[in-house]
Amino acid sequence: MQAPLNSLVIVGVGLIGGSIGLAAKRRGLARRVRGVGRDAGKLQQAIDLGAIDEFSLDLSEGIRDADLAIFCTPVNRIPEQIKVAGAHASRSTILTDAGSTKTDIVRAAESDLPRHVPFVGGHPLAGSERKGPEHADPNLFTGRWTVLTPTEQTPSAAVEVVQSFWQALGARVRIMAPGDHDQALALTSHLPHLVASVLAGILPDPLRDLTATGFRDTTRVAGGDPDVWTPIFQQNRDAVLAALAQFVDRLDQFRHALDANEPAVIDRLLAQGKRIRDALGS
Amino acid sequence: MQAPLNSLVIVGVGLIGGSIGLAAKRRGLARRVRGVGRDAGKLQQAIDLGAIDEFSLDLSEGIRDADLAIFCTPVNRIPEQIKVAGAHASRSTILTDAGSTKTDIVRAAESDLPRHVPFVGGHPLAGSERKGPEHADPNLFTGRWTVLTPTEQTPSAAVEVVQSFWQALGARVRIMAPGDHDQALALTSHLPHLVASVLAGILPDPLRDLTATGFRDTTRVAGGDPDVWTPIFQQNRDAVLAALAQFVDRLDQFRHALDANEPAVIDRLLAQGKRIRDALGS
Repeated sequence: MQAPLNSLVIVGVGLIGGSIGLAAKRRGLARRVRGVGRDAGKLQQAIDLGAIDEFSLDLSEGIRDADLAIFCTPVNRIPEQIKVAGAHASRSTILTDAGSTKTDIVRAAESDLPRHVPFVGGHPLAGSERKGPEHADPNLFTGRWTVLTPTEQTPSAAVEVVQSFWQALGARVRIMAPGDHDQALALTSHLPHLVASVLAGILPDPLRDLTATGFRDTTRVAGGDPDVWTPIFQQNRDAVLAALAQFVDRLDQFRHALDANEPAVIDRLLAQGKRIRDALGS
Repeated sequence: MQAPLNSLVIVGVGLIGGSIGLAAKRRGLARRVRGVGRDAGKLQQAIDLGAIDEFSLDLSEGIRDADLAIFCTPVNRIPEQIKVAGAHASRSTILTDAGSTKTDIVRAAESDLPRHVPFVGGHPLAGSERKGPEHADPNLFTGRWTVLTPTEQTPSAAVEVVQSFWQALGARVRIMAPGDHDQALALTSHLPHLVASVLAGILPDPLRDLTATGFRDTTRVAGGDPDVWTPIFQQNRDAVLAALAQFVDRLDQFRHALDANEPAVIDRLLAQGKRIRDALGS
């Protein structure tokens, strides 16, 4: 970033919003960081943690004088909040978000915002099954990818500001079309969440003691907040169903190999999965 | 343990066998720990790491004078090794194992061993996707469960020795029937492994950068060695297929809720999974 922002507004100061605030303040990216939310107790906690400087419970008021406002709320709430923010934004405000789906949010922003308020869709590929500013981490984005999803309507100057902001937070930035983002994330994030939830969901209570690190790793994301995840599945339904179909197709290959007692096929399927997993590192 | 063993023999000195050796030596559970394997280089490495005192490449020789021998090899190799060991064991040798399946191994041991050589099926619920003695950890079993699967034929004195041994390694011991163990582990370990492998297997290479901790956690176990896991799936085929049917049933509930656009159902399924996952802790 060339110069620090005068005013950074974070709407939704949970794990992601709180981490953005902590990182922005530590790195001197904004003279003032304001949190906007509904819960004064949580926002005060975010002040105490050093994630924000001040807060507002009213978005139409909190958005005033923002240079950059970033929406870190569940994806079903972002479109309405963008609309409210757009109606009260100044001529120099840029809006962006951190939602896990992009198509619906970008479409809503482009149809609802006044033409002078630019919106740049964004999604930092970082997070955790935990929630709340108490789990915020100023290094959450360091070395991680943030996807930005500008369209032909997005002013390139706004994209540059948002890109510089994420890079200044330590992230690497990749530009993708909203639909490409959503298809990719269906495979890399939404489907794994669904599968982890199903695995956790069929564990009978008496077997809890018989789980080891493998089960815990494989199901960890199932601890995520349904209020966050249900809207993600709703908004990205088609891509998740397509990813699920791919998953079930390969699952059926395993099932058939087990049924038919074909260890060579099982071995090949496991070896392919291992090759791909090994390439990701720890 | 009342007194240390004179001679502990570990057949297969990888992550699990190496961890048993390290823990047994640090805790003074055996006067001499001998590794048995096929690869002199790896066994020498295990000596250098302090996991064993000496090694043998010949099981029929290495088993001599063992008080306790524990088989930590892939589950398809354990039955044949038990047979060889039984033919060369002394009157005071107790055999046990650390295999992830129990029915086939216990059945083979009971049909193949001379009556004077007791076998106690065992399975420590600890491990990792990594392999080799270089990843061994003397605290791998601390506070973790080890399942023992004695049958009516197993002498109770042998069960007590093996139970005391695991407790002295820091583990908690649970007694189960071999079939009950295999059904439980199909759900808590083998199915999660299969699912993780399938998730990893459908990730196209260009999407690697778009994976975050969620994908990495969910698929971590897919990095496990197919030489270890294919025999587990083979031996525990029926229970894994039954667990897979339960999984697919719940997966179909998700798919149907997505298809029919029923967010309340998705929310309920996610909340149930979260409740169970939260109860497991981190």
